[in-house]
Formats: sequence, C-alpha cells, structure tokens
Amino acid sequence: LNGIPLLTPRAHKWKLTLCYDGTDFKGWQVQPGEATVQGELQQALGRITGESPLPQGSGRTDAGVHALGQVASFALEAPIPTENLRRALNRTLPAAIRVLKAETMPNDFHARHDAMAKTYEYRIFRGETCPPFLARFVYACPWPFDEDAIFSGAEAFLGEHDFLSFAASDSDLSTRVREAEAAGTLHEQPQSGTTVRTVFASSWEERTVEAGRILVYRVRNMVGTMLEAGRGHIRAEDIAGIIAQRSRPAAGPTAPARGLFLHSVEYGPA
Amino acid sequence: LNGIPLLTPRAHKWKLTLCYDGTDFKGWQVQPGEATVQGELQQALGRITGESPLPQGSGRTDAGVHALGQVASFALEAPIPTENLRRALNRTLPAAIRVLKAETMPNDFHARHDAMAKTYEYRIFRGETCPPFLARFVYACPWPFDEDAIFSGAEAFLGEHDFLSFAASDSDLSTRVREAEAAGTLHEQPQSGTTVRTVFASSWEERTVEAGRILVYRVRNMVGTMLEAGRGHIRAEDIAGIIAQRSRPAAGPTAPARGLFLHSVEYGPA
Repeated sequence: LNGIPLLTPRAHKWKLTLCYDGTDFKGWQVQPGEATVQGELQQALGRITGESPLPQGSGRTDAGVHALGQVASFALEAPIPTENLRRALNRTLPAAIRVLKAETMPNDFHARHDAMAKTYEYRIFRGETCPPFLARFVYACPWPFDEDAIFSGAEAFLGEHDFLSFAASDSDLSTRVREAEAAGTLHEQPQSGTTVRTVFASSWEERTVEAGRILVYRVRNMVGTMLEAGRGHIRAEDIAGIIAQRSRPAAGPTAPARGLFLHSVEYGPA
Repeated sequence: LNGIPLLTPRAHKWKLTLCYDGTDFKGWQVQPGEATVQGELQQALGRITGESPLPQGSGRTDAGVHALGQVASFALEAPIPTENLRRALNRTLPAAIRVLKAETMPNDFHARHDAMAKTYEYRIFRGETCPPFLARFVYACPWPFDEDAIFSGAEAFLGEHDFLSFAASDSDLSTRVREAEAAGTLHEQPQSGTTVRTVFASSWEERTVEAGRILVYRVRNMVGTMLEAGRGHIRAEDIAGIIAQRSRPAAGPTAPARGLFLHSVEYGPA
C-alpha cells in the first residue's frame, strides 16, 4: 500500500521445560471442570499475555504422574524476553508447577512431533515406614524383594519389542486413544503397529529411594511386572515370555502413578 | 466374692511418636467435619481396637504445620504388643501420617503435661525456582537476604523473655486459647504470665534447604521477624527492642505454616 510494508503480527514459537507434582492434577490434558497441567498453563499464559494458546506437551501424563522435565510448545504473538516469560509464569502458576526453562524456537518446532525419546523414572521406597514427606512421590514397597530378580527383570525390556502385553486394558479406552496418538510421534522408533517400541535403557539404581529409568511407554505396567519378579510371584526369566505373548493379562499389575516421573524428553539437533 | 479376685480391665498408657505432612489437615485438634491429625488417629485406633480414646498431643499444631516427632498419649484396655499396634496404625492411617514408635508408659504419663521442651524447625528455600516436590514443606524466599542479619537476629531470642510481641493477634481468639493452655504445661520454663518463655537454642544452618531450630512458641512470628531483618526491612539489632516492647504490631509478619516442623518433644527421665 503505497510502498509501506504491511506489518503482520508474527507468532513466536516457544518451548517450555516444566516440572510438576502431579498428585493434585487430573493428568496433563485439559478437561472441563478439572485441574490439569495443560489447563493451568493455558490459563497462566492467558493472564500474562492476553493470548491463550493451548500448549502441546511432549505427551500426556496420567493423573498423579509427576514430571522432572516435561516439554511443551505453543505460539505467542506478543514479543516477550524469554526470562521474563519464565518468571511471570512462575509467579502465576500454582507452586506445584514450575517452569525451569523458556526458549524461543524455530516456527516448526512441536513438542510432541519432534520428540525423539522420553525417559521415565519410577521411584519405590524400600524402608518399612515411608516418610509422609515422600509419600506422594514414591511407591512404598516394604515387603522383602529379590533385588537381583528386579535388576535382571529390567534387562528383559531392552531392545525392540511389541509391548502389547504392557498396553492399557481394553476397558481403558481413553488411554488407548492416547497411546495411539503418541505412537505416531516417536520418529526414531521403528514400529509395525502401535505398540512396537525400542527400549534404549532399563535399569534400577540403589539410592535413598531406588529408581528405575526406562524409556517410553507403559512404564507403570513394566514396573509392576518387574516388582512381581522381585516379590517372587514370577521369575525374572519369565518376562521375555510375557513380552512375547503380546497379551495384557500376561503382565503384572499396574504400579501406582505416584512413583512415576517423566524425567526428560530428547529432541534432535535443531 | 468368695475369694475370687475381681478382674477389672486395666488400661495401658501408650506413647506414640508421629510424623506428618500437615498440608491437608486442619491442624492437630479434632474438629467436626474436618480432617485433623488427632481425628485421624482416634478413628484409626477405633478401627483397630474397638476403643476410641482421644489421643492427647504434646501440643496442637496449626493447619499446614508438619511434624517430624510429635508425641501423643492415650490409654487402651486391649493388651497389644507395641510393634503390632505401630504396624496396624500405619496400615490404617493415611500415608500423610506415620507412627515412628509406639511404647507403653507408666499410667500417669501425659504427652502434654510431661513435655519439658519442644523443638521446632523452620525451613526456607533460597533458590530462584522452588521444586514442586519441596513446595509443601518450605517457605520459598527467592529474594536477596542478608544472611548475617538473620543469623544474628536469631540470637536475640535466646534466654528468658516475655514473647508477647510474638503472640497471635487479638482477633485470633482460638489461637489465644491454645496458647494459654499450652502455657500451663511447660513445667521447666519459668513464667510470670502466659507469654514468658525460655528459648534454649535459636540458630540457622545452611543446608540444601536452610533450617532454623527454635524452641517453643510463636515460631512463625519469630521467623517472620528474622526474615524481615534478612531483607533489610529492620535491623537485627532491633529485635531485642521488639521483644522488649511486648507489642504484637512491633514484630514482623507471620511466616507461612508450610515451612514449620515440630521437630521433637523432650521428656524428663521416666
């Protein structure tokens, strides 16, 4: 128009790294009338910027599951220095959700589509009396355990397998939908269905609380199965067979959400 | 009766040492329709033994205040091995309350009357971003602090003083009643009213979270005053004068309940 360049608002793509205590949230995904991590984040962005983009997570976490390094992406038109947005969010969000890092990204960045691998950590407490200050963040397992069985049970998950035995039960339809969605997004993992995954690492460490790091997918069912080996209800050697059966009833019970942390999400070089 | 001795039920006096996450309780004292630590304990005893004695605490903790070593006493007629009662209580109580120790005591033991001193610990978090996993258990203070002022401020509380300046405000009638009750019970502490106390130790330690241990009474108001010195709003040297004024408005604001722990209760030799 008469040589004057049109100024159109240009949205900036943001990447947030978040930690949260999932106990009092109904999981990640926004739900009407329920407190969720995605919903709190959307509201806080609205209060700060007047814009209310729906942040996309690297994946959804179940009710009660925690995060040490969840990643979310969204676009904002308002130009804001990264450190200012991080501070404003931490002033606005409930103390159960903290923004560790805020970065601007190339416009095509997407927290879920671009995620290459996710690391989960599952924490169990082995003492007889679990301190109330840890109770929200561990699965208290005071009973005797064969720790060697748990350690060698963990190894059975390594490599590429069809983890159908560790999928959600048929009745849990919403979880099935979630998994199917997630399945399309893990680019680096060869798959011949929606339940084939590659586990890059799976082990337990002994610490004040014991911790197992396992990559991706149905971690709570995998942990529940390893703990069954620890208690002597199955043998560690049986786990390979349970995987091969591709049958949910073959696997152990689901370990409680409270011990599970989404530890971190890996992305390729920008 | 024909020489047969009458068997009358003999109650055994119990002492429990408890820890709890106070966040979701309306304090120690039983209140109709509210979750309280005393109420949960009474209910659990009822479910286990069929008897529902009201456990007496060493003192009441406010809503949101935690305990690492609260002590409670009560009498039970049923004879139960101590370790069995401890385990049964931990199976029955919510995970936010744990029984660390159960002991039988001489019949005249009373958790409040016999308490000689109580130690409180107040935890503040100094980093910029408070992890959500600590948020229930610390007062997050990200602002710059003159730590020397806090350290020397703490010393002003040592010794015998009338701590009227740190009493609850006049409008908080229920707290005033609580304090008056507690005042009658600390045998070892000389007093000329209800607010004279002896502080045996008062200091701050630097740890992952900083901690202050202070004995007895209005700890949250004392901490709030020390933190004012840390922020430079008052001088550490002013604290002695604030104590001498015996006036609540002279002291600093009340520090939040979430950072306060009843650390332990001391009793004399049995």
